[in-house]
This record gives sequence, C-alpha cells and structure tokens, in this order.
Amino acid sequence: MEARLSTLSELLPDKADSALIISGENRRYFTGFVSSLGYLLITRKQAYLLVDFRYSEAAKKNARGCEVVTFKKLSDSLREIIQCERLRSVMLEGSAFTLNEAANMEQIISSAGAAVIKSNELDNLIARMRIIKTANEVENIRTAQRITEEALSETLKLINDRITEKDLALELEYRMRKKGADGISFDLITISGKKTSMPHGVPGDEKLTPNSFITFDIGALYKGYHSDMTRTFAYGKTDDKKKRVYNTVLQAQRLGLEAVRDGATCHAVDAAARDYIYAAGFEGMFGHSTGHGVGLEIHEMPFVTPNNNYILRSGMVVTVEPGIYIPNEFGVRIEDTVVVSGNGYINLATFPKELIEL
Amino acid sequence: MEARLSTLSELLPDKADSALIISGENRRYFTGFVSSLGYLLITRKQAYLLVDFRYSEAAKKNARGCEVVTFKKLSDSLREIIQCERLRSVMLEGSAFTLNEAANMEQIISSAGAAVIKSNELDNLIARMRIIKTANEVENIRTAQRITEEALSETLKLINDRITEKDLALELEYRMRKKGADGISFDLITISGKKTSMPHGVPGDEKLTPNSFITFDIGALYKGYHSDMTRTFAYGKTDDKKKRVYNTVLQAQRLGLEAVRDGATCHAVDAAARDYIYAAGFEGMFGHSTGHGVGLEIHEMPFVTPNNNYILRSGMVVTVEPGIYIPNEFGVRIEDTVVVSGNGYINLATFPKELIEL
Repeated sequence: MEARLSTLSELLPDKADSALIISGENRRYFTGFVSSLGYLLITRKQAYLLVDFRYSEAAKKNARGCEVVTFKKLSDSLREIIQCERLRSVMLEGSAFTLNEAANMEQIISSAGAAVIKSNELDNLIARMRIIKTANEVENIRTAQRITEEALSETLKLINDRITEKDLALELEYRMRKKGADGISFDLITISGKKTSMPHGVPGDEKLTPNSFITFDIGALYKGYHSDMTRTFAYGKTDDKKKRVYNTVLQAQRLGLEAVRDGATCHAVDAAARDYIYAAGFEGMFGHSTGHGVGLEIHEMPFVTPNNNYILRSGMVVTVEPGIYIPNEFGVRIEDTVVVSGNGYINLATFPKELIEL
Repeated sequence: MEARLSTLSELLPDKADSALIISGENRRYFTGFVSSLGYLLITRKQAYLLVDFRYSEAAKKNARGCEVVTFKKLSDSLREIIQCERLRSVMLEGSAFTLNEAANMEQIISSAGAAVIKSNELDNLIARMRIIKTANEVENIRTAQRITEEALSETLKLINDRITEKDLALELEYRMRKKGADGISFDLITISGKKTSMPHGVPGDEKLTPNSFITFDIGALYKGYHSDMTRTFAYGKTDDKKKRVYNTVLQAQRLGLEAVRDGATCHAVDAAARDYIYAAGFEGMFGHSTGHGVGLEIHEMPFVTPNNNYILRSGMVVTVEPGIYIPNEFGVRIEDTVVVSGNGYINLATFPKELIEL
C-alpha cells in the first residue's frame, strides 16, 4: 500500500476492519486518481479502488498503491471483496455518504455478512492526516495562488464605471482557467459599495459604486488544491475614515501573520489580529474568525478561531484574514494564505497589500 | 401555505408529522427562495424556513408561503418549533443529509422529544411532484436552452486547428454566462476525434482532431433550471461510414421524438430509437438510455430506459438522445429536450440537426 493508505489503515479503530471512502477529495488524496465516481475500500492489508468501465484503464495506469477493480454491478464486486477478505465491519465516510446512499450500501455490506459503522470517526482521522501538507501539495496551492494573482492583475485593468460586479467575477474566472486553473476555489466575491460591509456579499448585476471600496475574495483550483486571497481596493476617492479602517485591518493582518509559527495556538493568532481591531475601536465589527486551513477543501482544519487551542505545526496551511465591517457603510478585509514554518510562516500570496487606488 | 407546500404536507405518510428539507433545489422549489444554507420544516399546518442573519431580510421579503425564522443557534430554533407544534416525528430528506449531518440533526430533534425518520420516502414524494412542470418552469428551461444555442452559434465561429477541447468548453461557458446564465448545467462535453466514442469523454488540452466529429453535449442553468442538448458536427472531411452513422442516429432520434406523447411509456420511447439503431446493425454500440427528465436537476424523473413502464404525461420534460459509439473510432449523439404534450411534444431545442460541416 502507498504510505497514506497504510497510515490510515493503521489508524483505524479496533472495531473497524475496513473503511469505505467515496468523496472525490479523499479518493484523490489517497490514490492520486481523479474520477467523478469511485469507491475506495481500505482494509488492514490492502486497498481496492472500485471504478466502472469509464475509468478502468486510466485508474489501472494512474491510481497509486491500490488494486483497481472494474465493476459491472458495484454490489457484486463489493460483496466479493468483503467475503474474500472476511471483513466483519466497514466504516463509512460520514461526511460524504447521504442517508440514501448509506442505506443502499448497508444492504450490500450486510448481505455480504459485514456490519457498517456510521460515525464521523473516519472523517476525523483523515482530516488530521490532511492537515500537514507535503511540499508537492504546497506547490499546488502556490500555483493556484499565482494564477489568482495574475488573473487579478489583468482583471483590475478592466475596471470602469460600466462593468458589473458579476462581470468582474466572470472575467476573473475566465482568466484563471485560461492560465491553467481547473476552476475556482469558491464562488468569487467581487463586490463594491455598501455591499462590502457584508463578509459574504454576492456579486450582482449592479455596476461598481464610484468612490467606494471593492472587495475581491478570490481563489483558483489547481490539481485539486485551493487558494484563497482577499484584497480591498479603493475605486475613486477615499475619505479619511475609509483610510483609517483600511490601515487598521492591514496592521491587524500583519500582527496576525507575525503570530503564526510552529507551536502557536490558533487562538493566539486570532487574538493577535482581533485585539488590535477591538482596541482601535471596532469591537463588534469583526464578526468572523481570523482564518482557516486550506487544501483539498477551501475550509478545512485547523480553524483559526478565538476558542481553538489547537497548536499550529510546520506544514499546515492557513489563511489570516481579519476584517472590519461597518453596517450600511463599507467593509475591508485583507487575507493571505501562508504555510506554517519553524520560525514563522511562508506567505504564498505576493500581491501588494498597501491601499491601491484604482 | 403555498400550494406546493400544502400538497407535500398532505402527501406525508401517517407516521411523519413533518418533513425537513435542506437541499438547495427543493428549498427553491417549495419557497422560491435561494440561499446557500437553510432548513425548511414542513408540518401538517405550517411551513418554516430557518435561515441565518445573512438571509433573514431577503427571505422575509421573497420566500413564499412559509414563516421565516432567523436562527442564531439552529438547535435552539428547531427545538422551539418542534415543542410548540408538539411534533412527534421529523422525516429527513435522505438524498441531501449526509450521515454526519443526520447524526447532528437526530441529536437536536430527539432532545426536543421527537423522532427522526430516515428513508427515501420524502425524496420520492418530492420527485413525483416535481416531475410535472408549470409553464413558468418550462419557460426557464426554454431560456436556458436559448442561451445555450446562442452561445454555441458564437463558439462554432472560433473553431480552428489551434483551439483545444478545454478552450471550447471555456468559451462556451463564458458566453452562456455573459448572456445571463447562472452557470452551466453540467461539465460541458466538447470533444473530438476518437474521444467521441466515449459517451462521457472529458475535454482535454489537446487541439481538435482534423477530419473527425466534434461532440457538444452542453447546457446552461437559468433561475435554477437546466437545459440539455447534444449536437455532433463534422470538422473537416467526413467519409461515408461517418455519414451513415450520423444519419442513423438522426433518424433514431426523430423516431424517439415521434414516440413521445401523453400516455406513452418511457420504454416505448426508448425502443423507438433503440430498435432502429439495432436494426441498422449497431447493436451493442448504444450503451446508455435514451433519455431522462430535466428540471431543477440535470437528471431527474422520468428515466427513458428500456425497462421503465412509467407513463409520460403532459408537462413532463425529457431528453431524447440516442447515440452510436464505435470503439476507438468515433461516436455520434444527437439530443433534444422536449415537453410532453397531449398529442406529442414541444421541442425546446431549435438548433439544426442535419450534419453541419465546420
């Protein structure tokens, strides 16, 4: 078995003879193979990737460390493996199986004489494995980030008083994909005016608001890995209040970054940014957490929140993204994605953070 | 309650006091309201849409026929409703809840003194309601189809010996979205050469193969509704074998369409297309079903398959999409999406079907 597969196999709790994984992210993580459908069964001795005829040839060539089984009827192939391996229990990936899918699977598995285990244990084991990124994983995130920045630079040139928020998002995505992105990391946020006061405002058909902020919370997907960056720009004139808020967020973001290092707790990083914002008089205007892990999912462990004692370790990848949101006026958020290292962090974002007036 | 909500409420089996719906499609279907997160609880007397602060204002303005509840903690708000309404049981949407989500929900619901019912019954009830489309739903599919055809016409002009399959997909999507589509119906299929022999080939980085077929299986999303159309074009020279296969599929597709009417069975429509293809000597080269329903999902009831006795009724929307796939050579598929009517069908696709040489 490949290293990741055997690690998971060893981590399985005693009660579980095997684990069944169906999510695309986790099949990719363990086998390197991408397909729209597949079943990865990991036992104590062996891993099987079950695919249909569409993926048979490619899986045999590219899937790492597992035996590829091409099924005509999934139930027949699964039953055969369960009986050959004398499995007594199969733990299901609780974050991926729907109730209906689990009910079908339970029928198949119990007809082969094994029990299913439904819980979130398997998800937790895998999340803890995925939390430390390899150099290769970091390179994919870095590439996604580079694509994002290049697309942003080009898209900023399109800004005028006739373009809509939605158009900005579309032009960005088009450029990311032209540059080799598989897609976008999440629905891109490209909003202006009062809407920037909402952390998750949705781009609309309205044209950009003159003399306001524009918030870009954007990311590309590259080989399955996400990037995540936020920049806030001034479109037209900026008054002193806006500048003050911008510089407060910028300083808070720098303080948050400076708190990142191997051994720091998540809450310490959160506090470094949050305390500065609150002390500057903006308590109650930073209603979300300071960051989150990034990888095969856009939001994954660890979560950089006020109450999380989890300790950051070298190789984790997290965002640092404080903001200030003044209701019905405007908001500012600045976000980088960084790799935790022994004595600090490596910033995967290189896009300038000083206030840019467009 | 709005008509759809009260219909579902009446259809609930005796054992279920209420139903809990979380999928975006079904929340949209029953309330008209779109959000990334929400919980629709339908009891015998009342419907509640639970949303967080982000959607509170918009939901109160736009959600139809239900009481909007803004929750801070979902568990508190749900418990309160369950206790006020003295609900004894809540049926979960089995196709939407993951095992982990269902386990969380079960804790909340049982702490309020009610039981959860996990099965696919609720999904089946809703699927049978959604199968007949209203005029408004058909208009949305028609608009999605119009956008698709306009984008295709423009994209065909870009075809040359330097463009890649992936670029074709991207240019199509870009144009669909510029024309008002919310997005694409599914990962667009824009493939050429030998790859057309695979019904679900994935566009790659390779340039278009000269003197081959190009298959476009494409659709746009408009107000939540999908469109679905396939056209196969000749790129460069076409030999007699290719022409014969093309015309066989075209005639099979026309025969399939002619079999569509209120009262026909799904298998009769499938057979009309399939028998012609098999009789022409291509048995074993049409390995998928003839069609499927289209609506809020790209694949939904009814399924136009060889063994399905389900009877088509006016207002259902189905695809008719036979194909012939010759391994390692080429494939042809032609697909329209139509509305079943009393004496036949209304074709939502208007794009020509005679072989076009690009």
